[in-house]
Amino acid sequence: METDTITAISTPIGEGAIAIVRLSGPEAVSIADKLFDGKQLALADSHTIHYGKIIDPDTNEVAEEVMATIMRGPKTFTREDVVEINCHGGLVSVNRLLEIVLAQGARLAEPGEFTKRAFLNGRIDLSQAEAVMDLIRAKTDRAMNVALKQMDGRLSQLIQKLRQELLETVAHVEVNIDYPEYDDVEEMSHEMMMTKTREVYREIERLLELAKQGKILREGLATAIIGRPNVGKSSLMNALVHENKAIVTEIPGTTRDVIEEYVNVRGVPLRLVDTAGIRETEDIVERIGVERSRKVLQESDLILLVLNHGEELSEEDINLFKAVEGLEVITIINKTDLPGKIDMNKVKQLAQANPVITTALIEEKGIDELEKAISDTFFEGDLDAGDMTYVSNVRHIQLLKQALEALSDAMNGMETEMPIDLVQIDVTRTWEILGEIIGDTVHESLIDQLFSQFCLGK
Amino acid sequence: METDTITAISTPIGEGAIAIVRLSGPEAVSIADKLFDGKQLALADSHTIHYGKIIDPDTNEVAEEVMATIMRGPKTFTREDVVEINCHGGLVSVNRLLEIVLAQGARLAEPGEFTKRAFLNGRIDLSQAEAVMDLIRAKTDRAMNVALKQMDGRLSQLIQKLRQELLETVAHVEVNIDYPEYDDVEEMSHEMMMTKTREVYREIERLLELAKQGKILREGLATAIIGRPNVGKSSLMNALVHENKAIVTEIPGTTRDVIEEYVNVRGVPLRLVDTAGIRETEDIVERIGVERSRKVLQESDLILLVLNHGEELSEEDINLFKAVEGLEVITIINKTDLPGKIDMNKVKQLAQANPVITTALIEEKGIDELEKAISDTFFEGDLDAGDMTYVSNVRHIQLLKQALEALSDAMNGMETEMPIDLVQIDVTRTWEILGEIIGDTVHESLIDQLFSQFCLGK
Repeated sequence: METDTITAISTPIGEGAIAIVRLSGPEAVSIADKLFDGKQLALADSHTIHYGKIIDPDTNEVAEEVMATIMRGPKTFTREDVVEINCHGGLVSVNRLLEIVLAQGARLAEPGEFTKRAFLNGRIDLSQAEAVMDLIRAKTDRAMNVALKQMDGRLSQLIQKLRQELLETVAHVEVNIDYPEYDDVEEMSHEMMMTKTREVYREIERLLELAKQGKILREGLATAIIGRPNVGKSSLMNALVHENKAIVTEIPGTTRDVIEEYVNVRGVPLRLVDTAGIRETEDIVERIGVERSRKVLQESDLILLVLNHGEELSEEDINLFKAVEGLEVITIINKTDLPGKIDMNKVKQLAQANPVITTALIEEKGIDELEKAISDTFFEGDLDAGDMTYVSNVRHIQLLKQALEALSDAMNGMETEMPIDLVQIDVTRTWEILGEIIGDTVHESLIDQLFSQFCLGK
Repeated sequence: METDTITAISTPIGEGAIAIVRLSGPEAVSIADKLFDGKQLALADSHTIHYGKIIDPDTNEVAEEVMATIMRGPKTFTREDVVEINCHGGLVSVNRLLEIVLAQGARLAEPGEFTKRAFLNGRIDLSQAEAVMDLIRAKTDRAMNVALKQMDGRLSQLIQKLRQELLETVAHVEVNIDYPEYDDVEEMSHEMMMTKTREVYREIERLLELAKQGKILREGLATAIIGRPNVGKSSLMNALVHENKAIVTEIPGTTRDVIEEYVNVRGVPLRLVDTAGIRETEDIVERIGVERSRKVLQESDLILLVLNHGEELSEEDINLFKAVEGLEVITIINKTDLPGKIDMNKVKQLAQANPVITTALIEEKGIDELEKAISDTFFEGDLDAGDMTYVSNVRHIQLLKQALEALSDAMNGMETEMPIDLVQIDVTRTWEILGEIIGDTVHESLIDQLFSQFCLGK
């Protein structure tokens, strides 16, 4: 249990109407009280908000006009005393406020430290804490719904149910081993364990199948647009960006170079690779060279290969098909407003099982079909995150895979008629692995590492 | 008086721990109540905060986990009922929350509309409202202090004092005209008016003298670094950026191209012109061409002209001096770690009255002296915003200049012994012009235009 008082700016960095400096810990109220010229906060009721001024104790001057919210633990996010000071949202203004609070003895919070305290103090489990960050980073409504369900404890409940089943099985078998009144104990235990492990195995398998989709919703699809010059790559990108609101994400604390742009296509976030480059030179291959562009393609989740309906297939087009063989490709025959010279059958043959869409982007035709094709490539039918417990987190996916392996070992053991107490070790291991997802059986260093990926002030 | 309920996202756009959707107006509480699953907000005490969930009425699903703050007018920023809904600060998350609130009948606030209501409802005057935005946009502590004083009503009080004096003079004169019991009425009125207008004139003059400094604090100095290749321009820029925290400002609603970078040098915000360009090519003239670079120079508030201590003055150096003649220039003789080949006397002669600083940037020598020179060029002695009523706003400066002209007309009239009631017209005009600063005598269209420059959600 940590006992110092932490503070951080909890709103995004930038110019805005309001910025928040948050404090959490035993001294939160008394520190705020020392700076606050208005009602005496120590005497204020919990969950009330007060107008006042922040006086810089160094200069005795008014440093800010603020609203201070007092929330006393344990009915707070961190379960500790929390004070939120809302000030006018300028960069200088909120930084000065933070400095004054720090000077009064609060410690600058590490990234995610507020949520970490919520976890350590038992308000949420680990998968819920991770969902908090997923929620903030969500690029589309669908991704957000997945995070919300997870935050709400949907995944935690499922994992706990599976663990409970494994635990009961182990307990049941142990009792039978300890009290072997009946002859067929061994056999019964075997059978029951086989049934249970198979059930849990199937459940985890199902989670992992959905996980691929969850991961896409969470992280987006790295999408590369390729094609010869002048086939309409820029028009395609503009169509995707204009039809759908682009989401620009600036990764905090870094330079403008890492601004990422996402386009929300039917709830699927597309991250257009080398966007700026394509805009400028119209040709990704030309711009970054053959070697690097091949690497970019291999790292893409989705390739949009654009052809010109008004021209015959060229050697270059065919080379592009070769370069993307084995990847997820949607072929777009653009400029259907021009007389068709392209050999459609040949294109379909080159595209193999991958979808081929025709568009006239200049006339805004075919965009709907393209968006549907993108969604269909990764999601079957209409998605409803509400009905599913997506696993979207890489850490969770890896743990589920490990759990599957451990269960597989147990099942092999049973098939080869290994002694039941050896099989049991693998089942217990599965139980432990699943526990890591919700943070029941997890190392402190992992916890530190997990929360360090959070944004500041959360 | 406006009577609809407005809403907007009041925190900067970006990923953060907390985002705020603010509502103001008669329906603020009832709209929030319709969405909020938790305490019934309509029954909640004013200035209290409540944990709950936002339910999307369209889907009946949980859309967000929030804290809702209820503040009933008139003890609020806008003097209307205000609700602030704090949610997890993701882009998608806060946008969805806003959409749900809009769907319940709130109207999207125009930029600055919350502050406009504060003004229209009499909570603050116009110069205070403008200071709110200056505070948010402040690039340095000093600039922020100026804004804080203005927000606190320091400028308003001074303007009101001057207006009161003018009004009393006019009233006094009018009484005398109406009741000319004495022979010397005309003469006395004249004398008294002359004295008073002179006093007010001097006061406004003083304000305008300080205004130049206020404007610099508010808007920063456009600063160009020039010099031949390899004299250390990049080192200079890096030294300024590293010694002082760079403030990156993204102008909301626009693309990444307009990100501006400020360096805080002793409270003076320097905006380094063509920063990226200089970094890349080391030479602003080479990069943007002679014509454009001349234009950039003419538009700069400050030129840092860098020379190489280890080389003789070249024709090119001398041309640079010619190009910046008449501008504010600080000459920097860099690389004093190299044996001196430069003709110092010649440099001082070329620099005329402008300061010349020697540095060895590679050894981090001379940076303090440079920063002092920058500060001294624009501010005499140590600045203390606390003691001064800076006028930093262009609109205010223009109005003060107009007031000065009107007063000047009045004084000329008196000197040429114009009838006192004609002189009085100019004095009354001055009174009206000063009233525009605080918004007493101002047109609605101007008010609309002023607040439209605010950021969203303020």
